[in-house]
Amino acid sequence: MTPPRTADLGFARLDLDRAARTGTAEVVYAAGKTPAETVACLAGLLDGGAPLAWATRVDDTTADAVRERWPDAVVDEVARCAFVGALPEPVGEVLVLTAGTSDGPVAAEVAATLAACGAGARRVDDVGVAGVHRVLAVAPDIAAADVVVVVAGMDGALPSVVAGLTDRLVVAVPTSVGYGAAFEGLAPLLTMLTACAPGVLVVNIDNGFGAGVAAARIARSRER
Amino acid sequence: MTPPRTADLGFARLDLDRAARTGTAEVVYAAGKTPAETVACLAGLLDGGAPLAWATRVDDTTADAVRERWPDAVVDEVARCAFVGALPEPVGEVLVLTAGTSDGPVAAEVAATLAACGAGARRVDDVGVAGVHRVLAVAPDIAAADVVVVVAGMDGALPSVVAGLTDRLVVAVPTSVGYGAAFEGLAPLLTMLTACAPGVLVVNIDNGFGAGVAAARIARSRER
Amino acid sequence: MTPPRTADLGFARLDLDRAARTGTAEVVYAAGKTPAETVACLAGLLDGGAPLAWATRVDDTTADAVRERWPDAVVDEVARCAFVGALPEPVGEVLVLTAGTSDGPVAAEVAATLAACGAGARRVDDVGVAGVHRVLAVAPDIAAADVVVVVAGMDGALPSVVAGLTDRLVVAVPTSVGYGAAFEGLAPLLTMLTACAPGVLVVNIDNGFGAGVAAARIARSRER
Amino acid sequence: MTPPRTADLGFARLDLDRAARTGTAEVVYAAGKTPAETVACLAGLLDGGAPLAWATRVDDTTADAVRERWPDAVVDEVARCAFVGALPEPVGEVLVLTAGTSDGPVAAEVAATLAACGAGARRVDDVGVAGVHRVLAVAPDIAAADVVVVVAGMDGALPSVVAGLTDRLVVAVPTSVGYGAAFEGLAPLLTMLTACAPGVLVVNIDNGFGAGVAAARIARSRER
Amino acid sequence: MTPPRTADLGFARLDLDRAARTGTAEVVYAAGKTPAETVACLAGLLDGGAPLAWATRVDDTTADAVRERWPDAVVDEVARCAFVGALPEPVGEVLVLTAGTSDGPVAAEVAATLAACGAGARRVDDVGVAGVHRVLAVAPDIAAADVVVVVAGMDGALPSVVAGLTDRLVVAVPTSVGYGAAFEGLAPLLTMLTACAPGVLVVNIDNGFGAGVAAARIARSRER
Amino acid sequence: MTPPRTADLGFARLDLDRAARTGTAEVVYAAGKTPAETVACLAGLLDGGAPLAWATRVDDTTADAVRERWPDAVVDEVARCAFVGALPEPVGEVLVLTAGTSDGPVAAEVAATLAACGAGARRVDDVGVAGVHRVLAVAPDIAAADVVVVVAGMDGALPSVVAGLTDRLVVAVPTSVGYGAAFEGLAPLLTMLTACAPGVLVVNIDNGFGAGVAAARIARSRER
Amino acid sequence: MTPPRTADLGFARLDLDRAARTGTAEVVYAAGKTPAETVACLAGLLDGGAPLAWATRVDDTTADAVRERWPDAVVDEVARCAFVGALPEPVGEVLVLTAGTSDGPVAAEVAATLAACGAGARRVDDVGVAGVHRVLAVAPDIAAADVVVVVAGMDGALPSVVAGLTDRLVVAVPTSVGYGAAFEGLAPLLTMLTACAPGVLVVNIDNGFGAGVAAARIARSRER
Amino acid sequence: MTPPRTADLGFARLDLDRAARTGTAEVVYAAGKTPAETVACLAGLLDGGAPLAWATRVDDTTADAVRERWPDAVVDEVARCAFVGALPEPVGEVLVLTAGTSDGPVAAEVAATLAACGAGARRVDDVGVAGVHRVLAVAPDIAAADVVVVVAGMDGALPSVVAGLTDRLVVAVPTSVGYGAAFEGLAPLLTMLTACAPGVLVVNIDNGFGAGVAAARIARSRER
Repeated sequence: MTPPRTADLGFARLDLDRAARTGTAEVVYAAGKTPAETVACLAGLLDGGAPLAWATRVDDTTADAVRERWPDAVVDEVARCAFVGALPEPVGEVLVLTAGTSDGPVAAEVAATLAACGAGARRVDDVGVAGVHRVLAVAPDIAAADVVVVVAGMDGALPSVVAGLTDRLVVAVPTSVGYGAAFEGLAPLLTMLTACAPGVLVVNIDNGFGAGVAAARIARSRER
Repeated sequence: MTPPRTADLGFARLDLDRAARTGTAEVVYAAGKTPAETVACLAGLLDGGAPLAWATRVDDTTADAVRERWPDAVVDEVARCAFVGALPEPVGEVLVLTAGTSDGPVAAEVAATLAACGAGARRVDDVGVAGVHRVLAVAPDIAAADVVVVVAGMDGALPSVVAGLTDRLVVAVPTSVGYGAAFEGLAPLLTMLTACAPGVLVVNIDNGFGAGVAAARIARSRER
Repeated sequence: MTPPRTADLGFARLDLDRAARTGTAEVVYAAGKTPAETVACLAGLLDGGAPLAWATRVDDTTADAVRERWPDAVVDEVARCAFVGALPEPVGEVLVLTAGTSDGPVAAEVAATLAACGAGARRVDDVGVAGVHRVLAVAPDIAAADVVVVVAGMDGALPSVVAGLTDRLVVAVPTSVGYGAAFEGLAPLLTMLTACAPGVLVVNIDNGFGAGVAAARIARSRER
Repeated sequence: MTPPRTADLGFARLDLDRAARTGTAEVVYAAGKTPAETVACLAGLLDGGAPLAWATRVDDTTADAVRERWPDAVVDEVARCAFVGALPEPVGEVLVLTAGTSDGPVAAEVAATLAACGAGARRVDDVGVAGVHRVLAVAPDIAAADVVVVVAGMDGALPSVVAGLTDRLVVAVPTSVGYGAAFEGLAPLLTMLTACAPGVLVVNIDNGFGAGVAAARIARSRER
Repeated sequence: MTPPRTADLGFARLDLDRAARTGTAEVVYAAGKTPAETVACLAGLLDGGAPLAWATRVDDTTADAVRERWPDAVVDEVARCAFVGALPEPVGEVLVLTAGTSDGPVAAEVAATLAACGAGARRVDDVGVAGVHRVLAVAPDIAAADVVVVVAGMDGALPSVVAGLTDRLVVAVPTSVGYGAAFEGLAPLLTMLTACAPGVLVVNIDNGFGAGVAAARIARSRER
Repeated sequence: MTPPRTADLGFARLDLDRAARTGTAEVVYAAGKTPAETVACLAGLLDGGAPLAWATRVDDTTADAVRERWPDAVVDEVARCAFVGALPEPVGEVLVLTAGTSDGPVAAEVAATLAACGAGARRVDDVGVAGVHRVLAVAPDIAAADVVVVVAGMDGALPSVVAGLTDRLVVAVPTSVGYGAAFEGLAPLLTMLTACAPGVLVVNIDNGFGAGVAAARIARSRER
Repeated sequence: MTPPRTADLGFARLDLDRAARTGTAEVVYAAGKTPAETVACLAGLLDGGAPLAWATRVDDTTADAVRERWPDAVVDEVARCAFVGALPEPVGEVLVLTAGTSDGPVAAEVAATLAACGAGARRVDDVGVAGVHRVLAVAPDIAAADVVVVVAGMDGALPSVVAGLTDRLVVAVPTSVGYGAAFEGLAPLLTMLTACAPGVLVVNIDNGFGAGVAAARIARSRER
Repeated sequence: MTPPRTADLGFARLDLDRAARTGTAEVVYAAGKTPAETVACLAGLLDGGAPLAWATRVDDTTADAVRERWPDAVVDEVARCAFVGALPEPVGEVLVLTAGTSDGPVAAEVAATLAACGAGARRVDDVGVAGVHRVLAVAPDIAAADVVVVVAGMDGALPSVVAGLTDRLVVAVPTSVGYGAAFEGLAPLLTMLTACAPGVLVVNIDNGFGAGVAAARIARSRER
């Protein structure tokens, strides 16, 4: 087979054919990079032919650097994502639930990722199990969705309850919301891994990006 | 003040006035004792004037030793408790819920402890949140109780849901039921400590005895 | 049954009937919210008919925002709580003990919560077991209380000693006070969960709010 | 809505409508049950109208009890699953990969679950990354599958490599295979949660059942 | 300096001058050795001129092997220690306290070690803080001792209380007694390390040998 | 017995007779206190008759507050201790070793505590086992001391080597020096607890104060 | 490039060209395999042309099965390894040190691996740092070796001391020898990872095989 | 033997003969030192006759202090190393691979250490397993190297894949890159310790210095 194309920037080696290979183009993880490095990676991906290049975990300085280079870049300040180029047409529908309002930024990263990956999203916030009627009230939304992403910190109990109500897959995102024995997200992570209802699949703590990529693949699978 | 009376058995020092002081007589924890030591402790407590002496974590050999010494002793083989003497009249009502059938032995220890401490008990089993309608169906039982003990392993999500439905206190008992990331009960312990609904109080993993003592005090408090 | 009323603020979904359902109205956890969001939640709860709306984990900026909106709001700067509206008449008495002076802020959150939940409180500070006579000296206070809340960091040994002196329930609050092997509160948390005296019930590290809600329910139970 | 039907066996409360509600009927987790209890649960599910009742984590004694009651029951001794009734027609194809031969029993549970849930399965074993050409050699199998389940212990590196080769979702199952710093599956669990390639979703350690249920839903989604 | 003498047994290299160098002769840790290896080590130490050779963590088979070789060997079956040769005259007095009867075997190892190291011992058992008057009752014993060894599992709170009563050093030994959140002795270990009273020094979980050696050095220090 | 005297400052309850009872007067732990609270505690102790009052974990602001109130106070800025009053005459000699220069501040706290407790101190720094000849070179210092305090971070191996060279007790202080798998002092803590040489006693991570109090008691024991 | 040859046994996929590719042929890890599977793997490797096939973690039953199939197989019962075929001529010299006699079985696995990989080995046992002169006494052995493997449990301090004495690399193997805070080898693992002397490289707990492979490569590198 | 020379700076004790003894001169770890202390140590080493003195973990202030004292000092600001004196001629070749660009600073410390230790280095960055063809593309570089250092955070899977391709040793450096379940480098550390391919040796998290020293010894071993 032809080896995949890469672009060597010295400090980085862009994987230009990743979209063709995996359906998801390389995305720039800005957390460990200087603003200049993030901009260079985005430019390299665009030069390699990508219609859209984007970055996650973008801080204010990097956001400014992106906007300076591409004035029409779109920055989602809650999700901490920056987009350069055209978003695809959304296909399907992913329901994104949060247990509490503090889980909002992670849910925003899920939603931004869904948009970049071409999946439709619908968010309903603050439906934690301390008022389980709030969960039951979203049953119609769940039934209408292709897949459900559940974002929860603290006890992380919401995915178990949602998974018991539906035949949709539940992509569970533990968050670092909470204190003390929440141990920076360890508590909801363990809860979700041991969910008593099957159909729950788990990503890393605060990993809205990973949940979004996975959910988008499910939502878009009807295209195949 | 007069110092409390103790009985020195050499290997043990019985706290004879603990019932007067704390409302709960000393109970023999048989796990680290020989059968003969457990029998000697029970005898010492009865000699000290207790109307009921009892032991927890009793294995088969110890149960036989107790029955040999006191033919009318009562042994609860699921709860692994042995009783010598008269149980008090039950006061109030404690609702004991389990998330799954595997939590049964711990719930049995709760119930046995309630009986020994003079509180009424009602058990409803297998109402885990994977079928949340099962939880909602016990709402009348919850409303009729003085306090609710919830026993759950795996994700340990049941106390959060129950506490959101009631103004009764929820005494949560994590169990070592589950595998892998349940880490011998660590997962439900953390879940319960970080429950998103207030009103949840937690005891040690598999500690049906401690939950029973606490719940009995609440149920009997109307006597004061 | 009639589904509980909720108020949808977009970023939050207030549970307006929680007081009717659980005896404790929804309380705003300010830690993960902007000042504007906290103010909006408080306003939403008041609009929903609550006589008192309050928030915990309030920082200085949020406190200012609350005071700007409601000039007669009360802010407890040690407990980091803000109250808008009328506090209920206190019922019963909860004794709040601290092991050391550094546990003071958590004890203040307990006391503020008790006030908001309508329970009487009495605080005695700095009675750690390194001078066990200080514990014995508060025996009369313990005997006079409906329930005891014990707040302790470091070795977390105080609840075990208190529980051995009384038939009152002990609600134990581990704090993140200490260094090294205290591991941000893990040490006292484990100590309290394994307390050798029954009657100890545990909440999350630094969770003065949860301890206060639980203790208030016990103190007010004589009203039933 | 009509409340879901349950069957109360005393020690268990069967959730008879779970298949209608979630697409997956209740499955009996035999690990915490006596053989008689497992048999009773299977009988209850069949009585409730299920065409197939099955149990996981079945030991030899329980397997014998099942076969005694239903002579035509099928027991998969590697997967430790027992089936009573008719398996559905398989739909779609799930590729199940193992990193090493010791991961076989967990992969067998995945395959048994897929069969019970009506999804087609194809297994390729022992393709760990220590010989990465073995992974590359299965690229055609990956391309032909609807979803890939990757079962791996020790370093748990296989899902990261597979996810970098395909646009199929990867359901990753860490196993307790390994010793020392594998910490009973903790090492591969963390590896999979932090996989550097998106598209990896994780279940509990050794949880072949959960992976199978999730993969079957994806494989069957083309039916919707 | 002259290099210390060693005896090379092939599988072991005995440190014959350790008593001269450190005041404590090499002691055979039998846990990882065959009975024959333990016997050979004991013989080698005696051959090297030691008046007393002894082993810890001796199981029944090894005890029999020792007694077969040296019919007048003394085996303490609770402490799991075997002694060959003459015990020294005891000097000073070490008070050994246990929190509960289940801590007895570890306390027995402390006492056996004290005897072998030539220090006097006095044991008082079962004085846990759940009945703090039991601790106060031993104040005269504490005052009469040169040093106090406190052996405790579960919450491990006893050393904190004892250290607050005396100017004697407290050597604290956490035990693996307890279940659940005791985590095989981790809970009392952390409690003791974070004891709120100074004067507490800690050894490894269940390490009665280490505590005994240290306490004996303190008790015998008046000889210098 | 006459109950010990306490001074109630509202936020604190000073234990005025602790010196008489335990040989060590109450010391003010400034970490969780405001500068005013620390000053008030020091004043209370002096008012209670103490010839010396002192505080540990003093930051710059608190140090200034102390110096403003008592111009002749002595502040040790490396050890972060402040002293008001007269230091006792030193008795005996404690050798304080550090493995590396980064362990210096903790060793300074040990030395300051020894001074306040009336024990003589001798420090030798930077004798880690990476150059074991440096350890051997201090053998004469070890032989001349009453007790050795060993302060070490990273691998924490120094106490094992020192304890193998002497019959003096080794008080081991793990420090939070190091990164990565040192886990803030956990690595040297475990190393010291499992030291292969007996005679090692361990205190909390970075707990120079606790080590100093214990070592001073040993050094001064010849006075008894 | 030509894809490497594999042999598909159904349950296993042998990597026949691994010796050509990595210098070390595939070795059969018997721990998770039936005796028949281990025998089949060994046969497959021999059929693939290997002059020597061997297995690690062999229990008695598997050893018998190997000997039954190949009567001239060599089984090392301490190392738990079985060899079929001819061992290579040893090149170079690896010094294998143990801290205590209980580390013997792991050191035996190191030595067996060295033999199979064609490196010379020299073992010196029981030179732990509690008698540091024993370490200094082996300095000539260290100087004569190409690389040193150090096997140690408990405090795991030996590699730090050895690495400070030599310019040879130290391959450190933590063992699960010890109890309590040794936490099944976690303590020496962390010690070795944080060794204060550079030149220490670490393998998994009890991983004598991995240490042997690595050391053999260094010892044989003079052949290149 | 003649005892090694040391230089006593009061706060530090320089090990002047370490290069002669271990092949690697003492290197100043600046993290726990004041700028003046670091400068003094460097000066002491130069005074002791070292041709090159250098420091790691140098912050900006310390770098300035070094440059002020020695205007021709070389500071590598990415690697955070400062060199005073002449670098040795490089021997051999070490290949340094990173999994992602965020691992760059640690790889820079590896490269700086190699330069100081006299080994040749070649870096190839950003070849993580999410695009495994990038790893395969560096096979010629691997074959040309004496040893490979692999630096990786997050899942830490790269060393397993590289070790399966070569007979060179792989020195694996886990980094603290990643979030959530990466737990500050714990995830890649465990992955590397449990690597399914032999030939992987592990150093502490972010320990580029240790990896560099070890790799340089291997690269230079052809000189012996």
